Amino acid sequence: MKIQLALDRLEIQEAIQLTKLVEHSIDWIEVGTSLIKEFGMTSIKELKNAFPNKKIIADIKTIDNARYEFEMCFKAGADVATVMGVSPLVTIDTCLEVASQHNKQVMIDLLNTSEEQKSYLMKYKDAIFCDHVSKDEQEENGKSQSGIRQTEMFKKHFLKTAVAGGITTDTLKSLKARLNPDVVIIGSAITKAGNPKEAAEKFKDLIVKLEGEHVDE
Amino acid sequence: MKIQLALDRLEIQEAIQLTKLVEHSIDWIEVGTSLIKEFGMTSIKELKNAFPNKKIIADIKTIDNARYEFEMCFKAGADVATVMGVSPLVTIDTCLEVASQHNKQVMIDLLNTSEEQKSYLMKYKDAIFCDHVSKDEQEENGKSQSGIRQTEMFKKHFLKTAVAGGITTDTLKSLKARLNPDVVIIGSAITKAGNPKEAAEKFKDLIVKLEGEHVDE
Repeated sequence: MKIQLALDRLEIQEAIQLTKLVEHSIDWIEVGTSLIKEFGMTSIKELKNAFPNKKIIADIKTIDNARYEFEMCFKAGADVATVMGVSPLVTIDTCLEVASQHNKQVMIDLLNTSEEQKSYLMKYKDAIFCDHVSKDEQEENGKSQSGIRQTEMFKKHFLKTAVAGGITTDTLKSLKARLNPDVVIIGSAITKAGNPKEAAEKFKDLIVKLEGEHVDE
Repeated sequence: MKIQLALDRLEIQEAIQLTKLVEHSIDWIEVGTSLIKEFGMTSIKELKNAFPNKKIIADIKTIDNARYEFEMCFKAGADVATVMGVSPLVTIDTCLEVASQHNKQVMIDLLNTSEEQKSYLMKYKDAIFCDHVSKDEQEENGKSQSGIRQTEMFKKHFLKTAVAGGITTDTLKSLKARLNPDVVIIGSAITKAGNPKEAAEKFKDLIVKLEGEHVDE
């Protein structure tokens, strides 16, 4: 189980400094949507330059203009880019095609997808499916992250999954037992911690313990 | 019927130069999603600085993190910002709330919304509803813009509507007759024209003719 560190609502230099503190405990680095929309492709370029050996996930949340946006992300140094599962399927098809041409990966965000949409998405065998409780659902609606996650059906079909939204060391054990995702996406539980280095180490130690072995990059 | 000029897949300075050529024929300026994702908030700031008297639409396509993204857009100088109709309703609620606090407007993008979602969206009386055939549906799928548009039901309830996607002077007349949108969003038919000034004038003249009177800002 990889740890994807989600960097959101930060200046680029803050994001880099923060990541330096925790880089030995985390696996993948997510340039959050808020960084992309605030600073553009510079955010991806600077994070990739600072951490050339880490996998960089551009959370660009594409919903149209797939070819242009995905090529822009890969050119800027991203290894994975995200597309919304609620997009027209032609958009998702195009993301997969562009990623394959660049030998990169696609993460499909399942936010607010219907059962019907999820069933169509199962055909994208090369994608990583990201099940997330959105920021607004957590903050504005007070929705807990402990409910049934929707990636169970994807996992059953041996598809790669990621889980995001309000994950803490307290909820990680049951999440692993129930869904065993390939990636856990952690944001504020590390970035807003009093001691981010310690917080990241706690996550890493817990995962090592839960898996019974060290998870290599 | 206002003309919203959509600026996409351009450098910021190109977008400004292009808009200067056509500013007397167009009403609103849309900073396209591709400009925001490539250059960040700078794109909105520079367009607003260059055209302080025009209404600036930030096509940020929010789908989460509504408060942060909308405040960022309004702070950068946007007068209207866009949210996806396929978002969780709490996200759209938050966009309306933030816009109201700033005395600004929300445009709700109906891309890929279900009938059920559209019926929920009818409650947002202060929003502008944007019906668009997406770039990918046009370019990757060859979908024509001439099909039945989905804003008819919104218009019947006296809600404000915008229509986008592949609109030309040839299709404008039937679009006006059928839907009479408050805003027509024109991108490449102006920005990629051999003579953008002339193309914009043709749209403006046609609208004046169709309406039988001059449309003021």
